[in-house]
Amino acid sequence: MIKLAPSILSANFAGLLEDIKKVEEAGVDLLHIDVMDGHFVPNITIGPLVLESIKGRTTLPFDVHLMIENPDRYIPNFVKAGADIITVHAEACHHIHRTIQNIKSHGVKAAVALNPGTSLTSIEYILEELDMVLIMSVNPGFGGQHFIPSALDKIRSLKKMLVDRNLVMDIQVDGGIKLENAAEVAGAGANILVAGSAIFNTESIEDTVKLFRNRLDSF
Amino acid sequence: MIKLAPSILSANFAGLLEDIKKVEEAGVDLLHIDVMDGHFVPNITIGPLVLESIKGRTTLPFDVHLMIENPDRYIPNFVKAGADIITVHAEACHHIHRTIQNIKSHGVKAAVALNPGTSLTSIEYILEELDMVLIMSVNPGFGGQHFIPSALDKIRSLKKMLVDRNLVMDIQVDGGIKLENAAEVAGAGANILVAGSAIFNTESIEDTVKLFRNRLDSF
Amino acid sequence: MIKLAPSILSANFAGLLEDIKKVEEAGVDLLHIDVMDGHFVPNITIGPLVLESIKGRTTLPFDVHLMIENPDRYIPNFVKAGADIITVHAEACHHIHRTIQNIKSHGVKAAVALNPGTSLTSIEYILEELDMVLIMSVNPGFGGQHFIPSALDKIRSLKKMLVDRNLVMDIQVDGGIKLENAAEVAGAGANILVAGSAIFNTESIEDTVKLFRNRLDSF
Amino acid sequence: MIKLAPSILSANFAGLLEDIKKVEEAGVDLLHIDVMDGHFVPNITIGPLVLESIKGRTTLPFDVHLMIENPDRYIPNFVKAGADIITVHAEACHHIHRTIQNIKSHGVKAAVALNPGTSLTSIEYILEELDMVLIMSVNPGFGGQHFIPSALDKIRSLKKMLVDRNLVMDIQVDGGIKLENAAEVAGAGANILVAGSAIFNTESIEDTVKLFRNRLDSF
Amino acid sequence: MIKLAPSILSANFAGLLEDIKKVEEAGVDLLHIDVMDGHFVPNITIGPLVLESIKGRTTLPFDVHLMIENPDRYIPNFVKAGADIITVHAEACHHIHRTIQNIKSHGVKAAVALNPGTSLTSIEYILEELDMVLIMSVNPGFGGQHFIPSALDKIRSLKKMLVDRNLVMDIQVDGGIKLENAAEVAGAGANILVAGSAIFNTESIEDTVKLFRNRLDSF
Amino acid sequence: MIKLAPSILSANFAGLLEDIKKVEEAGVDLLHIDVMDGHFVPNITIGPLVLESIKGRTTLPFDVHLMIENPDRYIPNFVKAGADIITVHAEACHHIHRTIQNIKSHGVKAAVALNPGTSLTSIEYILEELDMVLIMSVNPGFGGQHFIPSALDKIRSLKKMLVDRNLVMDIQVDGGIKLENAAEVAGAGANILVAGSAIFNTESIEDTVKLFRNRLDSF
Repeated sequence: MIKLAPSILSANFAGLLEDIKKVEEAGVDLLHIDVMDGHFVPNITIGPLVLESIKGRTTLPFDVHLMIENPDRYIPNFVKAGADIITVHAEACHHIHRTIQNIKSHGVKAAVALNPGTSLTSIEYILEELDMVLIMSVNPGFGGQHFIPSALDKIRSLKKMLVDRNLVMDIQVDGGIKLENAAEVAGAGANILVAGSAIFNTESIEDTVKLFRNRLDSF
Repeated sequence: MIKLAPSILSANFAGLLEDIKKVEEAGVDLLHIDVMDGHFVPNITIGPLVLESIKGRTTLPFDVHLMIENPDRYIPNFVKAGADIITVHAEACHHIHRTIQNIKSHGVKAAVALNPGTSLTSIEYILEELDMVLIMSVNPGFGGQHFIPSALDKIRSLKKMLVDRNLVMDIQVDGGIKLENAAEVAGAGANILVAGSAIFNTESIEDTVKLFRNRLDSF
Repeated sequence: MIKLAPSILSANFAGLLEDIKKVEEAGVDLLHIDVMDGHFVPNITIGPLVLESIKGRTTLPFDVHLMIENPDRYIPNFVKAGADIITVHAEACHHIHRTIQNIKSHGVKAAVALNPGTSLTSIEYILEELDMVLIMSVNPGFGGQHFIPSALDKIRSLKKMLVDRNLVMDIQVDGGIKLENAAEVAGAGANILVAGSAIFNTESIEDTVKLFRNRLDSF
Repeated sequence: MIKLAPSILSANFAGLLEDIKKVEEAGVDLLHIDVMDGHFVPNITIGPLVLESIKGRTTLPFDVHLMIENPDRYIPNFVKAGADIITVHAEACHHIHRTIQNIKSHGVKAAVALNPGTSLTSIEYILEELDMVLIMSVNPGFGGQHFIPSALDKIRSLKKMLVDRNLVMDIQVDGGIKLENAAEVAGAGANILVAGSAIFNTESIEDTVKLFRNRLDSF
Repeated sequence: MIKLAPSILSANFAGLLEDIKKVEEAGVDLLHIDVMDGHFVPNITIGPLVLESIKGRTTLPFDVHLMIENPDRYIPNFVKAGADIITVHAEACHHIHRTIQNIKSHGVKAAVALNPGTSLTSIEYILEELDMVLIMSVNPGFGGQHFIPSALDKIRSLKKMLVDRNLVMDIQVDGGIKLENAAEVAGAGANILVAGSAIFNTESIEDTVKLFRNRLDSF
Repeated sequence: MIKLAPSILSANFAGLLEDIKKVEEAGVDLLHIDVMDGHFVPNITIGPLVLESIKGRTTLPFDVHLMIENPDRYIPNFVKAGADIITVHAEACHHIHRTIQNIKSHGVKAAVALNPGTSLTSIEYILEELDMVLIMSVNPGFGGQHFIPSALDKIRSLKKMLVDRNLVMDIQVDGGIKLENAAEVAGAGANILVAGSAIFNTESIEDTVKLFRNRLDSF
């Protein structure tokens, strides 16, 4: 089954919990939380305090995507703030193996994200350590961008690597995912789809989630 | 008259607008917005998207305190997100005069913040350009810290500099301000008091603001 | 046909336009402009002001090679200064896909340069977006260095990648190219040869260009 | 006597030596060479190669103003390229005393530049080591800006410091200097005036230099 | 034959030469010297001064492993301090080909180290230039960690690359090597084993070295 | 009484404890430990591991001088390694007040060091928090340099500041101190003298310490 992870980036921060409740009630699977530091990416979004304010008030697991430099120093803060999964960027980590161990040492799931231009070679020696790989299908930093088609090839190549190595793990895709391309992305091998504006900026979140489910029910 | 600027750092981010409405209704003067990038200070808080969500939905001016490195690149984003005042840190700006001009070129007020250990010499040649100076009375990064007493001396010295130069501008103080020390801070020369937990973490925000007003009505 | 791109690095900066006119009259194809910031490479050369001074005064396209960190912030300046092609280094860009889009959004051609030790994996997911790849055959920073032979293998591998993917784009090679090795470089698959001292530091630029043309006329 | 130092920033880089010859023939005293690395200031200008191209072809001393981070590593290059004076920025040097010794160890004059917002306290313990102080009267990075009036106070304070300590050294001022304010700047205590557009962008450089001399002949 | 390189990281720094003498007398082949700068890795260890103090007082070659950022600037210091081999990290060098040339220009052997998560693609274009590759089997920074099994695959892949290219060079492995796994590491293709605690923290260094020799005598 | 703090920088690292024993037996007061990271200063010396090796084996207090960037992250390591005093550089700390609190929170003494070119304004608002100020009388990085005379003025000014504020704390001076100038430095107001080569590189450490004591017994 394909999981849906609405991105908080498109939620209404004036009444965040209310928006989260809407996606929770609509039956999504994870809450994708975009953390940006204004250094790794050209935008600043939210940090641990915002997570803490919703911790324990939703049943959705916190899927924390750290678009920050030197993520190691903030991992404990995000764990404490309720993270269930922590994703770091391969491009931000010289010692990616250590960072992954660091995340896992706190008892949360560990994932690596790859920018659209980043090769899968950057994870070939840590794949066995991961709970998830996040393939970026836009350049991280902003919501509302268009899906970059070469991400499909990367998903397929990653899927093949996993099969070749007899590994089972989540493949998450983030960026420009809409009703129109969701099935294609799932077909390439992804099983967790992040969607921001395509879920939050619709008339009925409930209906939209149902439509996504319909499109994806064959996977 | 002394102005009160509740710090958003102690608000409830799960229902931010609601909390802001409470302080607005309690009659405070400014909304102090703490932006941290995890690099200049050891915490990440919120960025332009969060401001945009409340823009136009409160009558409180946005008093944006940028605790970030290289603030120049984000000034346009915060202006667009509704900032009325933008404060940058002297310690983060090699070209502080340019940064101040940059802020003012967008039609918003410009201020400089000084860390507890930073000398007033860092603003002596730009004082005439400023709308406000922010004297930090805790080390920026977290709410709920204790007021550092040497800040009082710095406020007095700054006040004297302003008088000596025949300048009129706001002196804001941020960190550890409570009912107990508010009058002393105002007495030293400050006219805008930032308070986070002392306002938001009280049983009745309305009553607390009144108590602050009582303590400060002689200034 | 193989294109020749004389590198401005070996021109006479005391009378730059005069030197440019010489290569223009000798019939070269592009003007290769080496921009170094003293941070990405251990040398500072020239910036937008120098380009602007020659803009509109030569018919040669400006092939701008940015050997600088964080090139995104200077792309608009180089476009305004007359750039026709902008090349950035894979090693300097965490978000190489975004940087390429940024260049192209200004209506100029976009290319990526690879240092001698850099793998082609760093461009495998952005190849479709590029107008050119620049294979460095010396370590960038200075003129007058010797051609690094392993660059030939990289050119061949890149050529193969392009053929395999049915892509047509320019392969530029920069560093240590002389009359003696030009044909070998072209034979490996390059179609734009950068040459600095081998063109500018010769008795007759016109004759040298002719000699290059002779060596390369079979490609 | 007041010295004039035309800034190369406003010269024509297409025919640099020709423009330098014009100011040389007009009788100026120094050639002010603005080196920017795109990191310390938001512009990249020229580096050692450009200096080398004019070295030995003008009688004007090279007054090299390094607007670059970590200048120490490039000092030998600029000495070799012909520098007679090397100025570094106080804001760019944690070990300013060492940097000054480094410059002087190469047998050239050493100076420190201060940004418009920088206090004289940053040079109080190295003043005895210096051959010159450069007071910036614009924010470094671009030509053609307006003179910042607070620079006059800083010049006067510096002049007083020198007198108090019985020191004799040059006070250079750079930024927005024109015929209209030259005398005021000299009157405040400066004895070397940098002027870019006010000299190069005039109909007759020779006449302009004479006009400057007239305005300044009482000092 | 397999070489043993005890890591100084586990030696007694209170009486360093004495400890070095013990491993020298036990017949090891190299002294592995771990240099950490607190920036590339989260620890600071020792620098050139410590090497100089033992230079000329042991017959063991100095195998210097630089876990530091921008290693180029310190290469001359370590050569002067007695280095026979200098290893730099691929992750710390944008211009790895230049850095290798820099090391070799001083007449010492040059090697590249790869972190556990780093792909062999980062050395595919410089392999011919190297005297040794160091495969890290722990995340660099501390002694006493456990061997990361994926290092075995990397050693085998590297060995295959060398055979395919007809290259002969040392393959060094560092991290978590003990009597129990030494043969497996050698079997994968490594010929220089670094061991810290497994050699220094044993009752008899002499006996331990003999035990290692026994385990490894079939290679 | 004036205290003597021999700098480990001039000790023999091949037999460190032995050298430390010599100064301990000669009756010095503190062991000055120079930690350099190769980033704040152009040298790498020693880190926590070296301290740990001598911890508990000498009665001399560990006076740890951190010449490193971002010292906060290593403070716990040096405390654990036996530090009694930790000194950080004002130039390396944007949040110097926080760093001082950090040091003191571990129960060790806290001090700030000032480079030769650094003004006392950088400590004017934290003086009350300090146990010691370290006035550098050479540029940090290497042993064996000459005393910079302007340090005497700075010591006197600092002494005056302390007297004016009714504060009692140690004034340490480091760099170029020898028998010849020790009394002058003490006369200016210093009460802890760091000496490296002047103590360790002498025929009899015991005699040298006695000679220092003689010169300083009037203070």
